[in-house]
Order: sequence, then structure tokens, then C-alpha cells
Amino acid sequence: MNRSDLFHLIQKKKSFLCVGLDSDFTKIPKHLLSSDDPVFEFNKQIIDATHSFVVAYKPNLAFYESRGIKGLISLEKTMNYLEKFNDEVFTIADAKRGDIGNTSTQYAISVFDKQASGFSFDAITVAPYMGADSVQPFLAFPGKWAIILALTSNKGSDDFQLFADVNETHLFERVLVRASKWGTIDNMMFVVGATKAEMIGRIRKIVPDHFLLVPGVGAQGGDLDAVAKYGLNNQCGLLVNASRSILFASSGIDFAEKAALEAHSMQIEMEGILQTHHLIR
Amino acid sequence: MNRSDLFHLIQKKKSFLCVGLDSDFTKIPKHLLSSDDPVFEFNKQIIDATHSFVVAYKPNLAFYESRGIKGLISLEKTMNYLEKFNDEVFTIADAKRGDIGNTSTQYAISVFDKQASGFSFDAITVAPYMGADSVQPFLAFPGKWAIILALTSNKGSDDFQLFADVNETHLFERVLVRASKWGTIDNMMFVVGATKAEMIGRIRKIVPDHFLLVPGVGAQGGDLDAVAKYGLNNQCGLLVNASRSILFASSGIDFAEKAALEAHSMQIEMEGILQTHHLIR
Repeated sequence: MNRSDLFHLIQKKKSFLCVGLDSDFTKIPKHLLSSDDPVFEFNKQIIDATHSFVVAYKPNLAFYESRGIKGLISLEKTMNYLEKFNDEVFTIADAKRGDIGNTSTQYAISVFDKQASGFSFDAITVAPYMGADSVQPFLAFPGKWAIILALTSNKGSDDFQLFADVNETHLFERVLVRASKWGTIDNMMFVVGATKAEMIGRIRKIVPDHFLLVPGVGAQGGDLDAVAKYGLNNQCGLLVNASRSILFASSGIDFAEKAALEAHSMQIEMEGILQTHHLIR
Repeated sequence: MNRSDLFHLIQKKKSFLCVGLDSDFTKIPKHLLSSDDPVFEFNKQIIDATHSFVVAYKPNLAFYESRGIKGLISLEKTMNYLEKFNDEVFTIADAKRGDIGNTSTQYAISVFDKQASGFSFDAITVAPYMGADSVQPFLAFPGKWAIILALTSNKGSDDFQLFADVNETHLFERVLVRASKWGTIDNMMFVVGATKAEMIGRIRKIVPDHFLLVPGVGAQGGDLDAVAKYGLNNQCGLLVNASRSILFASSGIDFAEKAALEAHSMQIEMEGILQTHHLIR
């Protein structure tokens, strides 16, 4: 899915909501545990209930890998199920990968090349610490996206991302400046935490046209209005992620219904924001 | 395996060699392709041929994930096979993981908690970009190690790792200073590329007692003598990794024999170094 397709999808669904499928086995409603594959069953019902309010799904690979091979099978079934909604959802492997060139190529294959790995996500999150040759292999797959960590939503982001040089340029700004030259606005996005909304204005000066993936709304406490105020551009330019606040809105048999209410409520808020900014009629 | 066990293993085997199991399916000798699981068969023969010269094996997870679920099965069989050598080899999941706290915990489970994931590596490589709370979950598993990226062996390491503040402290030095406070010399190591041997002296001033995992000898061109000169400490303190130069020493039916020759040759060189530095008799 290219940038224009993504913007059209946002306009059509009146939403820039991404749902993080951080499908923690220990938090899945108890009544699902008797099914053959509780994690897949959970995801399927979440997807069925929320897809009309959502432009993207972002499985967090850690929550599948922690269950070993059976976790990967749940993920594969989830991704195959999402193919049903093909042009209606953008898919992100939240994997935070990055290694020397020949290894990053293998990681890219693992999420982009269905024939080799069974997976064909639209995008992957990438950690930039190892530099250009660790990121570029992800950009070599036509139509696929690398989403580079810039300024993350967690407390530890202060440790290194705010490290600054003599000109008071922070590491995350250097990442934006350098990495944006390796790709284009059509194959690269950046992760910027919603808990750092005030920094998004600064970030928009460096990367005015890129999409930003913004986690941290919901359980992590970020504010959607502030994110929109500083982050929107003329093609929306935002994917705002919520995970736990939607997935685990209820732990009962009404979990999917409550997830839909939560997603719908965010979609309505986003529709208002898109209208105010004249991005939809 | 704790630090003292690791040093004793190094003394016993007269080697500080780690073999990277970057078992690229496309480079595996053709005669193995007819076996049920060519990657496992390849790894098994490499392990059988090299284990007496080697203190650690480091499967590079990208090369397994790129083959999807069947790749993970090959990895699981490889790790189960390595249990046969239990106290005789240290195992490292080369995964470069790191995410917000609850997610890093899942990644830690995926490599450390055999009951949950099927895997029980001794250590995992961790990317530090997201800071303290992304690293600490890996340190919460008794007897397990986090190996933090500091200064890597690839060209792109210049992009961000050499970013410097007003005091000319580089990012990789800040990583060493901060991260070394989160763990101990008994549960944390650092990755330092052999191609940056001259920097190892500088690194040793910051972390004199930590083990360093040093990739980049062999195919990437690093020099073992230079690494030893700057990097050895009084408990050896080095694990030097070679991958392609050993795994693919031959592409014929003699691949395991040639791998053993290559590993043995490195072990002999390391034995000389350990003797010169009075670390073995």
C-alpha cells in the first residue's frame, strides 16, 4: 500500500487509528482458552469487531515469539485472516529489528516475503542504532515500508534519544535528518511517542511530509488532540496506535464488543480532528 | 552459566571463540538439501565438528525467521541438540531486541523461558536505543545475560554510535557508562566490533571487567591480535565471533571438516594469546 492509498483509506474510514495486536496470552478472556488457538481466536474477534474503525493493525511480534512456534502459528493465522481485508487495512510488524546488512535483509524477508517466510506485512518497525546499512535492506522491497524509531514513548527514551551534540541537536533529530535521506516519504515513516507531543512540532520541521506512527495514546497516557495539533500534515501524516486500551477494554465475553466501542470512540474523535483540519469533508 | 563458569570454560578449551550460526539456507551445501531439515542437519554437523574448539554458539535469529515457522523449528532442534553439550558451550540468541518494558519482557521470555517458548539461551543481544526500561527486563532472569550493542562492526556504526556531545563523549560511550549501571559484570556484556579494535582500549577504560562480544573477525576483516591486545582482561573478558569464515569454509561435502580446520586454527591462535597473557598455563 503506497502513501496515497493510505491517505485515501484514512479519508474513507475517517480514522487514522492503528490497533496494536499485543495479544498477551495471560490477558485473553478466559472463555477463549478452550479454543484450538486462543490467541488467533482473540485476534479474529478483535479484528471483526474493530476493522471498520481502523486503518492499520500492528501485531507486536514479542507477544507471539514468547509462545515459541505455537505463537508464530497464531500470528501467521492472524495475518492470513487480515488478507480478507486486503486494501482496507495497512499491516505493521512491530519488531524493532536492525542488524548488519546481510542480516537486516533476512529480517526483511521474514516480514515481507510471503513465499519465503509465510508473512507479508506492509511495514516493519526498525531500530536505527546500527545506522544506514542496517536500515537500507528494509527499503529494498518495493511497496514495503520501514518505520524507524525516532523518539519513543517510554521513560528510557531519555537515556540516549535525548543525547545532544554541541549544537543541541538530539540523537533522535540526527536519526530523522539522516534516515530521511535513506528512504522517501513513500517507504519510510518514523515512530514518535504520543507522550512527547510537544516534541512533534520540532519533529515536523525536520520531516514535514513523512507519516509518523504514534504509540502511547491510551494505556501509556498520551493525548490525541495534542498529537494532532503538532503532527497532522496535508495528507494526515499520522497513524495513532492504541493497544491495551482497546484489546483489554473488557476481560469478559463482551471483550470484542467493548473493544469496538473503544475503537469507535477513538474513530469519532479522529473524524472530528480530520474535519477540523479540512482533511475530509 | 555465570562469569566464572565462562572463564573456566575458556581456560579448559583454551579458546574464546564463538561461532555465529548464521545458517543461510542459500549457502548450505547442496548435498544437504535432500535431508528432512537441511538447516538443522547443517548446524548439527557444524556443531559436531567444531564444539571442542568453541566456547559459544550464536545463532543469528534473522536467518531462521526468514524461513518462517520451519526456520524456527530448525532453530529449536539446533538448541535442543546443543543441550547435549550443556556446560561445555555458552549460547547466545543474536536477536538485537529491545522495546518498551512489557514488550522486552516478552522478548526475554521468547529466548530464556523454555517452558513458555521452547528456548533457553544463556544470553541475548539487545539494542539500547530505547534506554533503561527496554534493557532491564532482560536482566530480570537469573543466570541469563543481556549483551548490549555498543560499537558495532558495520560501516553504518558511524551514523549514530559516533555521535558526540559537547565533551566529545560518543553515543557508544554513553551507552557503556549508563547501561553498565543497569546490570552487573555477571549479567551484562557489550558488543564491540573487531573492525574497531583501536577503540577497544578506550572502551576498556569504561568497562574494564565486562565481557565483550566481538564480531567482525573473519569475513568482515577484523584482526584477532589487535582485539586481544586492547580487549583482554584478567578473566579473558572476550568472546570473539566468526560466522561465515567457519560455516562456509567449503560448500562441498567436506564443509564440516573445513569448518573444523578453520575453528581449530582460530583456537590455536587464541591458545597462544591466552598463554602469552598468562590466562592459561
